[in-house]
Amino acid sequence: MLPKALQNAIDALGALPGVGPRTAERYAYYLFRANKNLSDNISKSLENLHSGVKSCPVTFALIDGSEEVSPLYDDPTRDKTTILVVEEPLDIYAIEQTKGYHGTYHVLGGAISPIDGITPDQLHIKELLSRVENDKAKEVIIATNPSVEGESTALLLQKTLLEKYPKLKITRLARGLPLGVDLSYADQITLSAALENRTNL
Amino acid sequence: MLPKALQNAIDALGALPGVGPRTAERYAYYLFRANKNLSDNISKSLENLHSGVKSCPVTFALIDGSEEVSPLYDDPTRDKTTILVVEEPLDIYAIEQTKGYHGTYHVLGGAISPIDGITPDQLHIKELLSRVENDKAKEVIIATNPSVEGESTALLLQKTLLEKYPKLKITRLARGLPLGVDLSYADQITLSAALENRTNL
Repeated sequence: MLPKALQNAIDALGALPGVGPRTAERYAYYLFRANKNLSDNISKSLENLHSGVKSCPVTFALIDGSEEVSPLYDDPTRDKTTILVVEEPLDIYAIEQTKGYHGTYHVLGGAISPIDGITPDQLHIKELLSRVENDKAKEVIIATNPSVEGESTALLLQKTLLEKYPKLKITRLARGLPLGVDLSYADQITLSAALENRTNL
Repeated sequence: MLPKALQNAIDALGALPGVGPRTAERYAYYLFRANKNLSDNISKSLENLHSGVKSCPVTFALIDGSEEVSPLYDDPTRDKTTILVVEEPLDIYAIEQTKGYHGTYHVLGGAISPIDGITPDQLHIKELLSRVENDKAKEVIIATNPSVEGESTALLLQKTLLEKYPKLKITRLARGLPLGVDLSYADQITLSAALENRTNL
C-alpha cells in the first residue's frame, strides 16, 4: 500500500532497538520530508560503521579501523599498572569524561548472565589475566554495572584474579547516593552502602 | 575520543526526530554489534528513499517513483465523486485499514498553523477546488485532526468549498468516545459531541 521505498525504510528502521512500527514510520516519513542530506548522512555513516570500527586486541575498546591498539592503552602517559575493568566499550567514555582516571582499561564484553547464555568463558577474562602479568599490574578496579549480573561478574573476577595473583590490589567503584536523588527514594542497598562508607566532612 | 566511524553514525542518527545523543549512541552501538545486514538494510533503504517516493500530482498522496498517479485515485472501482480530505499522506493508510471507504483522497499537506507559519495558501486547497470541479464531486469528507489547527482548517475548507459550490455535501468524521476509554476520563468536548450525536441502539 505504502510506496515501496518508504515501506523498505520503515522495515529497516524498525530493526533499531526499541523502535516499533509506529516509531519507524515516524522516522522514515520525517527523513522523507526532511532535506535529502539527513538520510544521506545516516546512509553513508552506517555504510562505514562496520569497516571503520574494530576492537582493540589488547583492551577490547572500540578503535578506528586504522589503529593498531587503543590510543588509551598506547599513550605512554597512562599508567599501565592500573587496569579498570568495564562491561562494555562505551563505559570507557563515561569514565574518561570524569577526567580523573589515568590508568588503562579492559573491556569484558558483557557480564555473566545464565539467562542470556553468557558464561564466564565468553568474557575477556583470560586476556585480563595475561595483561595483569604482562603489564605488571598493581591494581585492578572493577567497574561492572551495579546489577545482579555485574555483581556476580565482579565476584568471579575477584576470585579468579586473587587465585593467580594473591598480592594484587582489587578495588571497585564506590556505592552511595547519586547526585540529585531524594534520600527517601533511594533503595535500601544503596542507602546501606552510603551509610557504611560514609566519609568525613 | 570514540572511533570516528561510530561517532559519525551517532551524529547522523541523532538527527532523527526525538532522538537525543544517548539514544543515538544506543542505536549506533547496537548496529555496530548486530549483523552487518541490519545497518546495510537501513543504509540502502535510505539511499533510495527520496528517489523512490514522490507525491501524486492529483491527490498528493505518496506514490512509488515509477507511478504517474496514486493507485487509489487511478482505480476505476473507486468513487471519484467522494473526496476524503486529510492533513498528511500517512493518514490515508489509517483510513484504508478500516476497509470501509471506497472514494478517493486528497492530502492538504498540513493544517493552518500561524505559530508554525503555515498559511492556507501553503495547503493544497486550490487543487481540491479544481478536483471538485473536474471529478464532479458530490461529497467532501473533511478528516483533519481533532486539534485546534485541524478544526480551523476544516472551517476554512467548509467556507471556501461552499462559496464556490453551494450544493456540495460537506461532512466530517464523527466525534465521540474512542474504544476502551473510561467515560470519566473523556474530555468535555468529546463527551458533549458523543451525547449530541448519540445513535439508536
